[in-house]
Amino acid sequence: MSNLTALFNPRSIAIVGISENPQKIGSVLYANIKAAEFAGEIALINPKHQTLYGESVYSSIKFVPFEIELVCIAIPAEYIEPVIDECIEKHVNSIVIVSAGFSDYDEKGAQLEERIIEKTKKAGIRVLGPNCLGLIVPPSKLNASFAASNAYDGNIGFLSQSGAMCTALLDMSLSKNLGFSHFVSFGNKPDISELDLLQEWIKDDQVQVIGGYLEEVTDGQELVKLAQKTTKPIILFKPGMSDEAKSAISSHTGALAGSSQVITTAFEQSGIIQVHETQSLFNYLMTFSWVHPPEGNNVAIITNAGGPGIIATDDIIHNGLKLAKLSEETQQAIAETLPPTAGTHNPIDVIGDAQAQQFEGPLKILIHDEQVNAIILIVSPQLVTQIEETAKLIVNTVSITKKPIIPVFLGGKHVEHGKEILNEHHIPAFSTVHEAVSCLAQLYHFRSFQMNKHKYLTNQLPKRSLNPSIVLKPSNDFGAIEEIKTMQLLEEFAFDTPAQILTDDYEEAKEFLAKHMSVVIKPTTKDLIHKTEEKTVFIDVQSSKDLELHFKEIQEILHKHTTSPKPTVLVQEYIPDAEEFFIGAKRDGTEQVYELDAPGFGHLLTFGKGGIYTEVYKDIVFALAPTTQEYIEKKLKETNVWEILNGARGLQPKAVNKVIETILSIQTLLLNYPEIESLDLNPLLVTENRAIAVDMKIFIK
Amino acid sequence: MSNLTALFNPRSIAIVGISENPQKIGSVLYANIKAAEFAGEIALINPKHQTLYGESVYSSIKFVPFEIELVCIAIPAEYIEPVIDECIEKHVNSIVIVSAGFSDYDEKGAQLEERIIEKTKKAGIRVLGPNCLGLIVPPSKLNASFAASNAYDGNIGFLSQSGAMCTALLDMSLSKNLGFSHFVSFGNKPDISELDLLQEWIKDDQVQVIGGYLEEVTDGQELVKLAQKTTKPIILFKPGMSDEAKSAISSHTGALAGSSQVITTAFEQSGIIQVHETQSLFNYLMTFSWVHPPEGNNVAIITNAGGPGIIATDDIIHNGLKLAKLSEETQQAIAETLPPTAGTHNPIDVIGDAQAQQFEGPLKILIHDEQVNAIILIVSPQLVTQIEETAKLIVNTVSITKKPIIPVFLGGKHVEHGKEILNEHHIPAFSTVHEAVSCLAQLYHFRSFQMNKHKYLTNQLPKRSLNPSIVLKPSNDFGAIEEIKTMQLLEEFAFDTPAQILTDDYEEAKEFLAKHMSVVIKPTTKDLIHKTEEKTVFIDVQSSKDLELHFKEIQEILHKHTTSPKPTVLVQEYIPDAEEFFIGAKRDGTEQVYELDAPGFGHLLTFGKGGIYTEVYKDIVFALAPTTQEYIEKKLKETNVWEILNGARGLQPKAVNKVIETILSIQTLLLNYPEIESLDLNPLLVTENRAIAVDMKIFIK
Repeated sequence: MSNLTALFNPRSIAIVGISENPQKIGSVLYANIKAAEFAGEIALINPKHQTLYGESVYSSIKFVPFEIELVCIAIPAEYIEPVIDECIEKHVNSIVIVSAGFSDYDEKGAQLEERIIEKTKKAGIRVLGPNCLGLIVPPSKLNASFAASNAYDGNIGFLSQSGAMCTALLDMSLSKNLGFSHFVSFGNKPDISELDLLQEWIKDDQVQVIGGYLEEVTDGQELVKLAQKTTKPIILFKPGMSDEAKSAISSHTGALAGSSQVITTAFEQSGIIQVHETQSLFNYLMTFSWVHPPEGNNVAIITNAGGPGIIATDDIIHNGLKLAKLSEETQQAIAETLPPTAGTHNPIDVIGDAQAQQFEGPLKILIHDEQVNAIILIVSPQLVTQIEETAKLIVNTVSITKKPIIPVFLGGKHVEHGKEILNEHHIPAFSTVHEAVSCLAQLYHFRSFQMNKHKYLTNQLPKRSLNPSIVLKPSNDFGAIEEIKTMQLLEEFAFDTPAQILTDDYEEAKEFLAKHMSVVIKPTTKDLIHKTEEKTVFIDVQSSKDLELHFKEIQEILHKHTTSPKPTVLVQEYIPDAEEFFIGAKRDGTEQVYELDAPGFGHLLTFGKGGIYTEVYKDIVFALAPTTQEYIEKKLKETNVWEILNGARGLQPKAVNKVIETILSIQTLLLNYPEIESLDLNPLLVTENRAIAVDMKIFIK
Repeated sequence: MSNLTALFNPRSIAIVGISENPQKIGSVLYANIKAAEFAGEIALINPKHQTLYGESVYSSIKFVPFEIELVCIAIPAEYIEPVIDECIEKHVNSIVIVSAGFSDYDEKGAQLEERIIEKTKKAGIRVLGPNCLGLIVPPSKLNASFAASNAYDGNIGFLSQSGAMCTALLDMSLSKNLGFSHFVSFGNKPDISELDLLQEWIKDDQVQVIGGYLEEVTDGQELVKLAQKTTKPIILFKPGMSDEAKSAISSHTGALAGSSQVITTAFEQSGIIQVHETQSLFNYLMTFSWVHPPEGNNVAIITNAGGPGIIATDDIIHNGLKLAKLSEETQQAIAETLPPTAGTHNPIDVIGDAQAQQFEGPLKILIHDEQVNAIILIVSPQLVTQIEETAKLIVNTVSITKKPIIPVFLGGKHVEHGKEILNEHHIPAFSTVHEAVSCLAQLYHFRSFQMNKHKYLTNQLPKRSLNPSIVLKPSNDFGAIEEIKTMQLLEEFAFDTPAQILTDDYEEAKEFLAKHMSVVIKPTTKDLIHKTEEKTVFIDVQSSKDLELHFKEIQEILHKHTTSPKPTVLVQEYIPDAEEFFIGAKRDGTEQVYELDAPGFGHLLTFGKGGIYTEVYKDIVFALAPTTQEYIEKKLKETNVWEILNGARGLQPKAVNKVIETILSIQTLLLNYPEIESLDLNPLLVTENRAIAVDMKIFIK
């Protein structure tokens, strides 16, 4: 893939579809490019005009007398193919197609899109769109979009599959003075996708925060790898989590939305911050763009009103943060700056009659207090509250500390100007405590993830198994593989299974019993068990006397039904007092998913409580392969069965390490056999020192 | 209790604490009263002045030559008591004390507060505050508060324990043109509390929506009764759900915040809409004030952009609403109003180039479509979008239908004016889909609750048990009552318990076995079971041969240890294949909780999965006594054990009706014995046709 330098910073632009009507999209594109003070050359293309807007107009891109790096196309889809041919002839570098009517519309459009991309790929031309708003790159003074406004310059790379989300976010950013390094709408993304943009932005120092709205993931495995690689925050709004919305997506862009669980798991595991609504997307972008993450989760609250302090406390606890404990000395120092009725415990109540300077005392003390990692400063507009002065005080304080200070100016009209002052100085200001605390929490949790992620991430795929004889084929209509193959796999990957022998000799069974204390005996053929009314399965057989009796009973019944003179009996060790555990897996994508450029996220591992409670309690967690032992353990701790395995209510603790080993073995098995579509191990019997795979089912179709 | 008419609509007001400094609270109160164009007489009280602000000033309220209905006091706490005496002498009707320094500050202040309220109660004077912002009653042109602005006239009664929340909400309401019938800050509430206000507002036709911020509930039982009685929506923000915030509350107002679980249960059960943050409180108030609840949950989306339509779909499903299915005819009719590239499936995509009239076609069709109960209309500011015209179209449409139409104008600056037009016409307008859909969902769920609540509500307390001999006393340090009393209660309230006999006669045991198929036999003294190494407990004894053997074994062992010649053995029916269920209860408040004016919510019933999984899975739900069979069943359906009881995974269905009966019996027991502080029945063994109480513990201290 060639890089996107010329797209993001072209030396010259051609506009195909300029018109004498300034309302038309091509004309708006031109106006936007001019308004942004683009420094390079601009060529207007329209066969019907000689000049427009005081500029020369060329009848074809071929006749432009200088090199063109970027071509913006805004003519109806049906006329675009010849223009593409001319672009190739002209050796342009990049093309933006804003027009719709391709794979977003009908089959014919989809074919046209495919033809165009085939040609441009061959010619080494990168294409943004079709069916998009274009792009804005403020550092390059480039606004090649038909958005209603230009974006402010900043450090956020924003990408969106929806033009409407672009315009909404852009409009919100104008109100808050929030800036972008790149603002890209990519529409149908047959060429340039979120992956290309992420790749560029991860390398680009101008980009400090990456955000986006993504209806459909181009290549899950690749997205996860990119996200794991970077230490920059990536904040994504992935709609279409409900089945109803998924069908709305496919009618809207023809895209196939992935399973919600796979996406949530992939995002969590690779540190992508997932948002579920627009305001949070915007708030998080703003906070990450402007505020350093705190070094810990101890938060101090400074407020001029008791109620909001209580609300903030609830929100802090709810978001996994802590109320900072202030030392006696700190409280004493704060008390000296405040009137006697003020509260010096956290939340610090500077009381209702506080003018700006009354906030200053505690604020100055807390930015130097090591027990405090972040400050929520709440201004309630009371009688003597100095909105502007307090805002200015915050501006001054923020300029001398790296400790995050998140201001909340409660209310509407009265506090508007205070918030404007803060936004002008790139300080977020919220109207509600709830928003402020949840943004702070995101900063903290992001930093924690980054500090721990080396433990959780791996790109290493285990080597393929060396046993070439194990070839998996479906043995029935459901795609289940043969039982014998399952047994071979269990052995190949060293699973612990119940010891068993198949024998026609009672003496051999007796020897086996002596070794295993207690056994289960039954016929080998499951059919027989159902065929006869007689009892043929004996559990927890402990004495050799009982064994002899039942062994012979089974043989007799078998003899009756099969006419075999000396039939064999299955003797299996009996496993008492085991906790039932569940491990499952399902592949997202095709069996090529682990290869380059194949869509899908790979195998989603599922594990938790087994037995009859698996479906009722759904006490299960998820991880995407490949993952690490530490991550499996971390997720396992989120289940309730973790408590049981570790001896809740006086139960004997079970072999948790063996459970984790078994999950890792399943992962190795899956990565060796990507053709496995799904797998089900229920139960895994967990005893004090073993985890024994009893019933594994593998499906490959 | 006298009513609050004079407080809400006084004919005359006196202000104690007016000063020549217009910044002082008393002066601000005066300015606010004047600015609101109060029509009655005003008397200013200050011993140091003759006139102020062009009005006569009296040295004491006693010397005011006309009757005073409302006195506003804004002088320091220490000088207030004599003023109260003068108010009593003057026979005033109501007093608002805005000053702080009472129970909110220290013990001395708390005593002063108590003395004052004792006097005013005796004199029949109602007191709002101390430590409050005052009150605003726009229909009476009354603004007896020191808030920075007056409130618009409207149909919302708003109450708040925090002045800061009042100012914040008020400021937000100004931006949105949202009006109030009453806006009351009640501070420490030693006299007028949320209960008085609710009582008034439930009766008052001017009040259609009740909202509030409440740090601490004055009388839980009473709040629940009031909420159950009314069909008006009550929307409450109750902070202090975390332990940390609870301690912040007690240092802030001296209030004791109740348990989060009790409050959440009480609100849910009585239909109070609980919010957890300020923006939702405001949004819900606005929506309930301006929009009719939908008659069903089928929602249509009209949008000019695909992305937000997908987001709305997700939010609709997530909030328990449905995407309306449009008939072929409806889709056809809509198609005729739109260009061919538009989408006529729900979400209806009028596409990006839609001007106002392109929204009109589908909108007009859907307001008459019976398959559609509500409409979310999304406007994304695109190139040709007509913000104002579209807003006006919505205004016109809303005026001709009762069907809720909730508009979303995505973005910030560009759409501001469109939203203002809507707000001017009392139509909510949101910036995000998320807010719009969650408000619509609240409307729908509120209506559903109101339509079903007759099934869930009861005020009937069962009659006290007639057996006077059962007197409960603690038998140990934990407050557990004696086992014999528990057994008496089990019998008195007709619980199903395991059949059992205590006998020294094997023949009698044999007869018992014959009746019960299988038994458990064990010594009566639990001590012995632990004292001896020998096996003394036999479970699932089925044959009379086994019974004889073990019965005699036990007797021998007993004989050895007790020297009793013919010791008795406990023979109990064995209950196989039972599901273990759990029922618990805990009282909120004192044992007087069910009497008038006693604080607390009463007994919180807890029920769900029993046995060792109770604590691990916490698969339990809650209900406050007294409640109905229907409500218990409704809550039971929210558990996972419901599935098991009803025969999940091929298990035999269990006697769910007996479980519900047992919960009702426990409720009757508790209401008869309010001295029971907590109770624990674990397990209740549920079989195919019985629910058998095996181990009940009752605590009264």
